[in-house]
Amino acid sequence: MNGAESLVQTLVKGGVDTCFANPGTSEMHFVAALDRVGGMRCVLTLFEGVASGAADGYGRMTDKPAATLLHLGPGLGNALANLHNARKARTPLVNIVGDHAVHHRSYDAPLTSDVEGVARPMSDWVRTSTDARYVADDGADAVAAALSAPGGVATLILPADTAWNDATGVAAPRPVKPAGIVDAAAVSAAAKALRSGEPTLIFLGGRALRAAPLDVASRIAAATGAKLLAPSSNPRMERGAGRAPIRRLPYPLQLALQELSAFKHIILVGVQQPVAFFAYPGMPSLIAPPGSSTHVLASPAEDCVDALARLASELNAPGRAALVPPQAPAALPAGKITVESIGAAIAALIPEGAIVVDEGISCGRAIYPASFSAPPHDWLQLNGGSIGIGMPLATGAAIACPGRKVISLQADGSGMYTLQALWTQARETLDVTTIIFSNRSYASLEGELINVGALNPGKTARAMLDIGSPDLDWVKLAGGMGVEGARAETAERLIDLLQASLRRSGPFLIEVMV
Amino acid sequence: MNGAESLVQTLVKGGVDTCFANPGTSEMHFVAALDRVGGMRCVLTLFEGVASGAADGYGRMTDKPAATLLHLGPGLGNALANLHNARKARTPLVNIVGDHAVHHRSYDAPLTSDVEGVARPMSDWVRTSTDARYVADDGADAVAAALSAPGGVATLILPADTAWNDATGVAAPRPVKPAGIVDAAAVSAAAKALRSGEPTLIFLGGRALRAAPLDVASRIAAATGAKLLAPSSNPRMERGAGRAPIRRLPYPLQLALQELSAFKHIILVGVQQPVAFFAYPGMPSLIAPPGSSTHVLASPAEDCVDALARLASELNAPGRAALVPPQAPAALPAGKITVESIGAAIAALIPEGAIVVDEGISCGRAIYPASFSAPPHDWLQLNGGSIGIGMPLATGAAIACPGRKVISLQADGSGMYTLQALWTQARETLDVTTIIFSNRSYASLEGELINVGALNPGKTARAMLDIGSPDLDWVKLAGGMGVEGARAETAERLIDLLQASLRRSGPFLIEVMV
Repeated sequence: MNGAESLVQTLVKGGVDTCFANPGTSEMHFVAALDRVGGMRCVLTLFEGVASGAADGYGRMTDKPAATLLHLGPGLGNALANLHNARKARTPLVNIVGDHAVHHRSYDAPLTSDVEGVARPMSDWVRTSTDARYVADDGADAVAAALSAPGGVATLILPADTAWNDATGVAAPRPVKPAGIVDAAAVSAAAKALRSGEPTLIFLGGRALRAAPLDVASRIAAATGAKLLAPSSNPRMERGAGRAPIRRLPYPLQLALQELSAFKHIILVGVQQPVAFFAYPGMPSLIAPPGSSTHVLASPAEDCVDALARLASELNAPGRAALVPPQAPAALPAGKITVESIGAAIAALIPEGAIVVDEGISCGRAIYPASFSAPPHDWLQLNGGSIGIGMPLATGAAIACPGRKVISLQADGSGMYTLQALWTQARETLDVTTIIFSNRSYASLEGELINVGALNPGKTARAMLDIGSPDLDWVKLAGGMGVEGARAETAERLIDLLQASLRRSGPFLIEVMV
Repeated sequence: MNGAESLVQTLVKGGVDTCFANPGTSEMHFVAALDRVGGMRCVLTLFEGVASGAADGYGRMTDKPAATLLHLGPGLGNALANLHNARKARTPLVNIVGDHAVHHRSYDAPLTSDVEGVARPMSDWVRTSTDARYVADDGADAVAAALSAPGGVATLILPADTAWNDATGVAAPRPVKPAGIVDAAAVSAAAKALRSGEPTLIFLGGRALRAAPLDVASRIAAATGAKLLAPSSNPRMERGAGRAPIRRLPYPLQLALQELSAFKHIILVGVQQPVAFFAYPGMPSLIAPPGSSTHVLASPAEDCVDALARLASELNAPGRAALVPPQAPAALPAGKITVESIGAAIAALIPEGAIVVDEGISCGRAIYPASFSAPPHDWLQLNGGSIGIGMPLATGAAIACPGRKVISLQADGSGMYTLQALWTQARETLDVTTIIFSNRSYASLEGELINVGALNPGKTARAMLDIGSPDLDWVKLAGGMGVEGARAETAERLIDLLQASLRRSGPFLIEVMV
């Protein structure tokens, strides 16, 4: 058994059954081992940012790590932007990055680089294997690091000789650090704030946005008059009819400040304090109003499910929350396409169990509020701010959840960063319907120019926001990668295409002109 | 004057007149300053790897830095792979990377990351501006660092507040460290080897592959019987009729070892010692035969033009070298498309002054030998091993050299990494003819599986080399980004399309089925 085989067997034994790969020469032994070992599905991508974003989508849906397989420092570099997103989402993920054989590194061959240096900024755990005999142990440690609370990105660098030399065996899974149990004092402090009679916000993020803890939070809110709110972007929300509804903090800072202005207490559950996405001249970074008190019920690394249950018990919160009623049959939109009519169409047609991936950016923000009472579904967002995750995330979610429809809401500018994901969707016949919001601009930046005080933008500045010269044609782009697509210029056509694509299997792309 | 304006003025004063940009919120002040200052062309790309690759192409053709404009850690992450290539090519290049305002960094907003950490592995110089009053000085230092011998990647991180706060003025260009003058002893040692009567190789790279030094090297070879050879991949070669010809070291290690096996002396000019691209089990990393002597005439940071002139003078090398005669009219190829017929067609049709960008990988290696006697042209290669540079490099070269035709030889697998470059070619109406070698596989890896000893690849391993399921359609992909294209399945059709595209202005893409 060589090092690569011992590593693949160790990963499989640790529950890693999927690998998103962009291999090169240094990773050929790992690839060859996949055939000899079995138990791991290997999915080829045409760009590493697709691999890392897909592994994030897989991890968000399964709560266990997928592997990526990347080629030296530059291959890892291409994966970084979506690893940044995965890290901010606290998704368990294991990168396997090939490197030159140890004896070859000192010669500064063309692909030589500081792979650990590239890995460190976007990884929670980094190690370079030094010997084929230790690769299995390193792999088991990587899986445990990825799974340890609150979940993270583990990067294992695999020099080629540690893959091809003889190994000693397979390593058993290592203990995983579980989510911490919060102190009784934290529960009491939150209960005290909730009993104070002063306006109190329960701010929930991360794992607290799954259906069960959200239901508990909703009961606490009902018992105490507190409000619930989620961050404007979240890794995964379980929502829809029969679940507790939760609004999100508005993205524009001015609106966010206004939203929180009246609260005296902010209780954090599984999330950091709310902060501005960007800094703006003369504006605060913190969104909580001055003079308010912030109480950490559960940090992202702590068990928010247990903490909420204990808090509910301390408060004698009722056994049932106000849940979203099943959807009333709504009239389907017609006529001109607007962000509102897209929202209404999607809300009406989301199938039960669907996974909605939202990288709609400026267009996407209107879709969420329209779909509160749609059949139960998951909602995944770009939550690390690095655009270009939508289509990879949809790809990984579809691999993770066969049998569930994925609806990928994609802004055109962001979509261009990782459009290669469509090819993998075609290759793997994934049930992904992509809706491209084709506004032909970096529309979100138009407001930001003003927000940062860069007033009276000239021709050059305006050109930097305009991606409509020349126009992108997403139906052709999709067709070039084997994904069928069509353009919708009316709400009726969008509805027809959406219904048809949800009935069939395999990927489909709808370019919506907005 | 704010910090952004002082920086743009400083860059323009330092000779930086082109910026390849992917801006976001944090860079809006820099973008706005471009309108108020003037003198810098700002070229939008749809992905940061296009920006960094284009800046590399610009720098290779002008020997001065272009700027990139990138958005925080993830934006820089997307640029890394081609910055790796630029660094290995020793291209002068200045990255401007926006970051959160200094006071906002501690709040861990979604886009917060260790930007310096991301920059360091692929930069020769890194600095974060800390105050708008010092931004101009930092910019001048960055330009000087990029231009200092042997040329390098300088990364200046620009927190948003250092762009929007008041600055103190513009900084004058800083002194640039020139290429070192080699010791007399190095010239004497090389001369002694060349006079020894033993088989001697002059191995030339970097700036030594421009027409003038190559001519001198060729005279030295004529006077001494030495052989000339270049690395298998090079940043820029000036070649063609009327110039000294030079062959390249074969890429396959076995052939490279054979090529050098008889030499007793290897003289390095502007380049490191020849090393294997990858390590292979049981194979050496160094290509020079054991027992041979290596003599450094000029390192990459030293003045190889001066060193070669002094060596020629010491050896009384003749005043004229054996140059490539002008091309004899050759019959154009016909019939089935092969790598050879593509080479013959391109060799016959390269216009004088053309810039050929070669990321043909397994197909590209056959094109170079066919075109020795074509009209004078430049030949740019992927020389850092990180695939996905071809189309960005062609984009930057075309911006740098208006009026010269660019022929972009592009392997299909590599092209998919940065296909967004085509959109910028259309937007800027660049004279780039792209030829896609559509073999629908990572063909170069087929040999590498065997070379590394990963024998009898199974179904999974073979699937990782196959990008033909589904087939990519490059004509559709190009059309989706506003670039007209057509497919060639015979040599006659290729020739027709090539001739037509070279006659017109603006980009065109030819997908060649090989």
